[in-house]
Amino acid sequence: MTCDDNVGAAETQWDSGYSRYGDDRLREECGVFGILGHPDAAALTALGLHALQHRGQEAAGIVTYDGHQFHSERRLGLVGDNFNKGSVIKRLMGSMAVGHNRYSTTGNTLIRNVQPLFADLDTGGFALAHNGNLTNALTLRRDLISSGAICQSTSDSEVILHLLARSNKRRIVERFVDAIRQIEGAYALVCLTNDMMIGARDPIGIRPLIIGKIDGCYVLASETCALDIVGAKFVREVENGEVVVITEAGLESHRPFPRRPARPCIFEYIYFARPDSIVGGRSVYDIRKQMGVQLAIESPADADIIVPIPDSGVPASIGYAQQSNLPFELGIIRNHYVGRTFIEPEQRIRALGVKLKHSANASIISGKSIVLIDDSVVRGTTSKKIVQLMYEAGAREVHMRIACPPITHSDYYGIDTPSTEELLAAKFDVEGMRKFMGAHSLAFLSIDGIYRSVGFEGRDPNAPQFTDHCLTGEYPTPLTDQTGDPAARQLSLLAEVS
Amino acid sequence: MTCDDNVGAAETQWDSGYSRYGDDRLREECGVFGILGHPDAAALTALGLHALQHRGQEAAGIVTYDGHQFHSERRLGLVGDNFNKGSVIKRLMGSMAVGHNRYSTTGNTLIRNVQPLFADLDTGGFALAHNGNLTNALTLRRDLISSGAICQSTSDSEVILHLLARSNKRRIVERFVDAIRQIEGAYALVCLTNDMMIGARDPIGIRPLIIGKIDGCYVLASETCALDIVGAKFVREVENGEVVVITEAGLESHRPFPRRPARPCIFEYIYFARPDSIVGGRSVYDIRKQMGVQLAIESPADADIIVPIPDSGVPASIGYAQQSNLPFELGIIRNHYVGRTFIEPEQRIRALGVKLKHSANASIISGKSIVLIDDSVVRGTTSKKIVQLMYEAGAREVHMRIACPPITHSDYYGIDTPSTEELLAAKFDVEGMRKFMGAHSLAFLSIDGIYRSVGFEGRDPNAPQFTDHCLTGEYPTPLTDQTGDPAARQLSLLAEVS
Amino acid sequence: MTCDDNVGAAETQWDSGYSRYGDDRLREECGVFGILGHPDAAALTALGLHALQHRGQEAAGIVTYDGHQFHSERRLGLVGDNFNKGSVIKRLMGSMAVGHNRYSTTGNTLIRNVQPLFADLDTGGFALAHNGNLTNALTLRRDLISSGAICQSTSDSEVILHLLARSNKRRIVERFVDAIRQIEGAYALVCLTNDMMIGARDPIGIRPLIIGKIDGCYVLASETCALDIVGAKFVREVENGEVVVITEAGLESHRPFPRRPARPCIFEYIYFARPDSIVGGRSVYDIRKQMGVQLAIESPADADIIVPIPDSGVPASIGYAQQSNLPFELGIIRNHYVGRTFIEPEQRIRALGVKLKHSANASIISGKSIVLIDDSVVRGTTSKKIVQLMYEAGAREVHMRIACPPITHSDYYGIDTPSTEELLAAKFDVEGMRKFMGAHSLAFLSIDGIYRSVGFEGRDPNAPQFTDHCLTGEYPTPLTDQTGDPAARQLSLLAEVS
Amino acid sequence: MTCDDNVGAAETQWDSGYSRYGDDRLREECGVFGILGHPDAAALTALGLHALQHRGQEAAGIVTYDGHQFHSERRLGLVGDNFNKGSVIKRLMGSMAVGHNRYSTTGNTLIRNVQPLFADLDTGGFALAHNGNLTNALTLRRDLISSGAICQSTSDSEVILHLLARSNKRRIVERFVDAIRQIEGAYALVCLTNDMMIGARDPIGIRPLIIGKIDGCYVLASETCALDIVGAKFVREVENGEVVVITEAGLESHRPFPRRPARPCIFEYIYFARPDSIVGGRSVYDIRKQMGVQLAIESPADADIIVPIPDSGVPASIGYAQQSNLPFELGIIRNHYVGRTFIEPEQRIRALGVKLKHSANASIISGKSIVLIDDSVVRGTTSKKIVQLMYEAGAREVHMRIACPPITHSDYYGIDTPSTEELLAAKFDVEGMRKFMGAHSLAFLSIDGIYRSVGFEGRDPNAPQFTDHCLTGEYPTPLTDQTGDPAARQLSLLAEVS
Repeated sequence: MTCDDNVGAAETQWDSGYSRYGDDRLREECGVFGILGHPDAAALTALGLHALQHRGQEAAGIVTYDGHQFHSERRLGLVGDNFNKGSVIKRLMGSMAVGHNRYSTTGNTLIRNVQPLFADLDTGGFALAHNGNLTNALTLRRDLISSGAICQSTSDSEVILHLLARSNKRRIVERFVDAIRQIEGAYALVCLTNDMMIGARDPIGIRPLIIGKIDGCYVLASETCALDIVGAKFVREVENGEVVVITEAGLESHRPFPRRPARPCIFEYIYFARPDSIVGGRSVYDIRKQMGVQLAIESPADADIIVPIPDSGVPASIGYAQQSNLPFELGIIRNHYVGRTFIEPEQRIRALGVKLKHSANASIISGKSIVLIDDSVVRGTTSKKIVQLMYEAGAREVHMRIACPPITHSDYYGIDTPSTEELLAAKFDVEGMRKFMGAHSLAFLSIDGIYRSVGFEGRDPNAPQFTDHCLTGEYPTPLTDQTGDPAARQLSLLAEVS
Repeated sequence: MTCDDNVGAAETQWDSGYSRYGDDRLREECGVFGILGHPDAAALTALGLHALQHRGQEAAGIVTYDGHQFHSERRLGLVGDNFNKGSVIKRLMGSMAVGHNRYSTTGNTLIRNVQPLFADLDTGGFALAHNGNLTNALTLRRDLISSGAICQSTSDSEVILHLLARSNKRRIVERFVDAIRQIEGAYALVCLTNDMMIGARDPIGIRPLIIGKIDGCYVLASETCALDIVGAKFVREVENGEVVVITEAGLESHRPFPRRPARPCIFEYIYFARPDSIVGGRSVYDIRKQMGVQLAIESPADADIIVPIPDSGVPASIGYAQQSNLPFELGIIRNHYVGRTFIEPEQRIRALGVKLKHSANASIISGKSIVLIDDSVVRGTTSKKIVQLMYEAGAREVHMRIACPPITHSDYYGIDTPSTEELLAAKFDVEGMRKFMGAHSLAFLSIDGIYRSVGFEGRDPNAPQFTDHCLTGEYPTPLTDQTGDPAARQLSLLAEVS
Repeated sequence: MTCDDNVGAAETQWDSGYSRYGDDRLREECGVFGILGHPDAAALTALGLHALQHRGQEAAGIVTYDGHQFHSERRLGLVGDNFNKGSVIKRLMGSMAVGHNRYSTTGNTLIRNVQPLFADLDTGGFALAHNGNLTNALTLRRDLISSGAICQSTSDSEVILHLLARSNKRRIVERFVDAIRQIEGAYALVCLTNDMMIGARDPIGIRPLIIGKIDGCYVLASETCALDIVGAKFVREVENGEVVVITEAGLESHRPFPRRPARPCIFEYIYFARPDSIVGGRSVYDIRKQMGVQLAIESPADADIIVPIPDSGVPASIGYAQQSNLPFELGIIRNHYVGRTFIEPEQRIRALGVKLKHSANASIISGKSIVLIDDSVVRGTTSKKIVQLMYEAGAREVHMRIACPPITHSDYYGIDTPSTEELLAAKFDVEGMRKFMGAHSLAFLSIDGIYRSVGFEGRDPNAPQFTDHCLTGEYPTPLTDQTGDPAARQLSLLAEVS
Repeated sequence: MTCDDNVGAAETQWDSGYSRYGDDRLREECGVFGILGHPDAAALTALGLHALQHRGQEAAGIVTYDGHQFHSERRLGLVGDNFNKGSVIKRLMGSMAVGHNRYSTTGNTLIRNVQPLFADLDTGGFALAHNGNLTNALTLRRDLISSGAICQSTSDSEVILHLLARSNKRRIVERFVDAIRQIEGAYALVCLTNDMMIGARDPIGIRPLIIGKIDGCYVLASETCALDIVGAKFVREVENGEVVVITEAGLESHRPFPRRPARPCIFEYIYFARPDSIVGGRSVYDIRKQMGVQLAIESPADADIIVPIPDSGVPASIGYAQQSNLPFELGIIRNHYVGRTFIEPEQRIRALGVKLKHSANASIISGKSIVLIDDSVVRGTTSKKIVQLMYEAGAREVHMRIACPPITHSDYYGIDTPSTEELLAAKFDVEGMRKFMGAHSLAFLSIDGIYRSVGFEGRDPNAPQFTDHCLTGEYPTPLTDQTGDPAARQLSLLAEVS
């Protein structure tokens, strides 16, 4: 959904901005939700998106269809701030709804890119919500514009609408298949037409999409936690390469691609999915704890206490503590009120840095040898600051343990990673990283270790069970748009001034 | 620019709403302005649009090009409220700018319809500002959508962009000509590309467009008053059927249509143009005074004073007073602070009605026989209320005189008229109208009288000098979209909820 | 109501700012309105304030009492923008209401100064709306603070509340009289308690206040036009030095001051009152026309046409034209859409100046000798620009005629005048002013001429019939606060940051 | 600071409102912060308030003094949303600053009650920030109004300003002492004058206030975490009954009250203080863990896992888990994005209830006997919902353990508790509460157990070491305002409409 964010110089500038400093993390791109046939379609969609808020905090949108018209609300900000009023929900009339959460970037992403996207086709209306990123969107967009298409957004997802609009098939499902056969990359799609909801996952199922049921109505969602919040029951995952067409008559499955083994993104387990979600039949919380257990087996530490970097390091810390039989302690307190943009007026105050978000619980840290556990390392700037915070709070030794292998490669499938040269693990070996962080020791979970945490013997090098290029450099699809002249990657001549 | 507003039931509802009651008037659709080569392009465009504010108060937009990117600001509300800040003007970088004022309607016209419209074409960017209305836009839109186009607005103007994008010509001017050869109706267009400004008027020149110069740079604008505000000099009018292409190298004229006599809209003289503008080489103020003179000759009244309905009735009143040698008096005071939406909480207060906008100056009215002069009558509801106001203020006799013939037919070229059945003159003869208004006498200017006011002997029935179908029923172009099933006129399935 | 605006350096800065350039005018301070016993009290008050909008455009407020609680809404901006919604009016419950319009200044006047002011007294609630300015407010404020009062605003009007709160009288009316006996200067007050509405005018009646009736309920208002808009009938003016106490039982008049002749402000006739108001039993429109007649008698001009400076110069122009038998023509067009803050980004654009507001109607001006008529001259900057505008439009001769004597002295009673040294007539004699303006000739109405226009033989030097210090330097009351150290005039240590 | 919130019927309505359902918690009233002599006074105050955000999320304010003027910004909402911009901080000029966080209530608390309060006294400006609640504010307010005071807020804190303003002492410190000798109840005050900062705690030190130093400048704050965020060093606590006067010359201590033993509020340890703060020389995190240890000793449970109710139940859970040697597991996931006002449109959706905020991590709960640990029980509605959530997620047995004794009495010292009759522990005995919640077993920490957790042998019934009336009914001061007619407790006749 985000080719605008992978391309062009302007987009990466903010990464070095101070206000994002505390956010040295991977970012997921989106959450999607859809429901057909329910009198409270919009309300349930708002709740589902609220449960998926961790997948995208920048913007949210809902499109409904009431049998006569489509209704659309797309807003910057959190679901709970924009879709919490009865008046908004009431405007979103109809028993069919699709919704979308967009992840957080800065100014240059505007309302015109907020999903669901909508088009009036000659077959009727069509609303589209996309989680993932297409790797040939730019190439397709150039071709479309050459033949007279006018794009209203800079979103990669819009090319799907144009391919659909231009398909010479008659039926909408055939047109949809026609369109997705031309796109490459990662996608979990939820679409609405005048009489059906369509769900689809890319041929290897990089991005998640599940099917649920509530009050006899089908639901599509990115994660099971979006079912739980509304009391819907989990039915099954949409399979890789599957297209599900849901009407009042029921669900019909299509398989427009040759069958291949699934290869979902490993980072759903490591970081993105909510701990209470079930992904691929496995509890995310259990797997994260297991990563901590595995990490304790691979890289034990002679220390007094286990300290999680909150909140994402907590499950692995519990596993590590249980395996190593060391006490689990809240050595770092996270300020949940932190805004994204707390700007310090003076350089001399800037040094306060990470304390806006994390503060040391000195009474438990002081004089101790501690194991500090995080889920992953991206640029390493936060790790460095937290190690320093621990020493300032009186820690005797800080043993850094990362419940994930080193991240060495950028993503092009919808995870917002910095460019490869900014990744700490692309710049240093483990010892270099340890020095950078200033830790007493540093260890990462091994590649096989992470596969073992999920329940495999290890990674199958011939047929890897997961999409794991960020850790291995093995991209599962061609990166069509990455070839050729980077200057040609400008999406629009229109600067987005507001 | 407004096929959305001519079609569909929802649009007319507000006409009966109280808040519009005081606005029983014709409405112009737009003002356009463009400039090329000036360092203050955006600031001058804002000022030009400000001078054209009377042509559209709902929304305004400016698009500029800085040699690298286009910059766009489109806002609901007045130019003076939205484009008055240095920060906004600074964001609109570049020496080329095009701007647009949109007239006032209610909720269902949203930001997506605010102009200038913009498209990324494979030849570069293209911004479009349109004054007028296409009479085959709906038909073209249906064809475009059938062949895969996705429309981002419900504006008739957008079809021009799609025709351009799809033209198989190579050069942008050829594409533009290709596009306008397919459209019917009224248009004055100002467009911006990466290296030129294009101006065009429809084959009979229904909507106005003039050329000016400031600091050696060409300006295009709807009226000369937009030149005066920035100190630009008037060069000439764009001729009917002419396309002017302006680059740094100068102005180049194209004539893609067979030559025909011009037939500009008579209502620019009657109502729309600002009195200090020069239209077709004639002073609008002079002509309006002349209409008053002519009216006094045709329909004198034995009365004590002449009272204009402010502000639009003032020039004709001055003419009428001078011709009849009766004193001109401000018998009605207009409240210039009136908002569009002063809503009374209770039915019993609603009866106050028109006094929000107009109040009687009783001291001058009381005991007098008055001639009340207005520029035109649409539904007649305001006329009726003002006649009543005059009697309540003690007028002995009220002689209503209208400086325009009866309006009997709707417009389809960009003037926002009610449907024919709502026009007072379509329902009643003059005596019926007099009774409806409750006036002592009522007279309208004759058709020939209005032509005489402009300087002709009278209307040439074989080759009318003006577009005057609202007065005569003779539409100057086919009304393609008005044929066929009205239900098929729905533009979009997307309800515009916000 | 505005001692904050008379004191301190910061307040006058904006006067020289460009954005105010076009507003080289006197400014009235306020309009007040009150009603008791009507089920639509708040709605009628909103309408009354709307009719009084010309007296103050910066802010407006309404306080109501519902028998249990007082309800208050105070907002920056126009009445029609803030009190036009049913929801706002509904919150203002109760059958008693008082409202206030505040005039337009810039940033430093904040919501805490917007009236009606309110206080919880031990006798109940008390709401106060004040038109005028106290000339000893600063002195009283200092005394109050010394004895422990805490002021919530920087408004002169607040001292009235404190004097009331501290009075040792028992009944509220006695307390009110106690308070107004201590204040000096100009005031028209409308107050609300738990069971009455109180109206009062200062001992010489500088500011206007009238009594009306609607549906059997008493209304108090600054001008009769506020009665007309709601259909209320005029009863009489509150007399100078009179206190009227209105309850459900009726109106009771008190005369707490020794009887003196009234001496209302002459500028209500010259500039402030709406032309359709009746002030002191005389039609404002008639008097303004009469000023034009008188001016034509005193200072005729050999010219072709009479051109009013719109809108305030129109009535005098009509009178001048009728007396001189020259044609009245709209030679200047005013743009009613002009905002207060249209800011030009560049010095080179600034020269456009006054054209934002006024433009020349060149076709009628060109080649003519014109009489240009305005109601008054303050700094003269606008006059100069308009004279220049006329010459640029081709005027042969410009004869400037001012329907008011030269303004030579500042006001301290609620009219926002520049300091004396900024007044054009305090710097130059008539010939000097003519040169400054660049006019061919210049003449002002004489002092006796203005008195004659109102119906007197002339000004009675022993007992002037009007407050006219701006023209004569004769202040009708002591200027207590103007003595002593100007540095001591700081009202609050609290800077108003937002 | 909040007598408005203890009095009157309107204030309690929201307590039963659904939107607050998930917030079945005690609420602290405020955080305060002050600094003198630092060039970045406002920025440091904003950061300090940010660290104290947990003490009040409704509103925040900062007042600074720059040697000439005071500057004030008071805003509804979070510190990080309102004081994060350089432009805001820049307006707050000066090296002296005082700030205040206000806790969250609904509509009827408006900007006029947001602190710091400010008054112009004849000695200069005075800004006041108050944490706590006065128990005789209403009585004092009535007396003040009777003698002519006008209150601008409905805050209990304002009476302190009036007492100060009216004191007949000469020096400001003497006036301050004069004022606080008249007030009763709980207060930690931070005040600013033209040349000093004053801090004070009530005679038994119910509310916390500490002294820190940064760059040689004194800081006052509610908790040590506000020192940590800016890198200030902890100096000592302000003692009970102490007044500290801080000038550029240093800190001077006054003891205007007879010495008494301190008796701080026990709920700072139980719930309010941030876990990384040091209160009374003891780590809050350690004490909370110790409460869990003590609870495990007093009321062990035969269960499989320990599940905290996040986030406040976590430290006690860690202690309980360590003491009982059972695994600590995240059985409940908290949604940190939850807004306060997520409104469901339909009753049928309302049943979703607590899941907006908490969801079950079913994979770890299912089939287990769990110990559910919370810090306290107020109404019990949340406890009941979470117990039910656990059973729905498959828990075999739910053993509820509360790390605090039953809360049986309302607070009048600044903690926002429901009225006594709404407290679960005032309605039921432990078995009754267990049935209400539907838990398998329920146990509370004992009174002596909580004193033991803090390091005492137990509660000294003759001289209780803490203010603990919510648990024991023993109020430490008279409740003057609670006597007499409840109807007389109305603070203002002015309804706060916006």
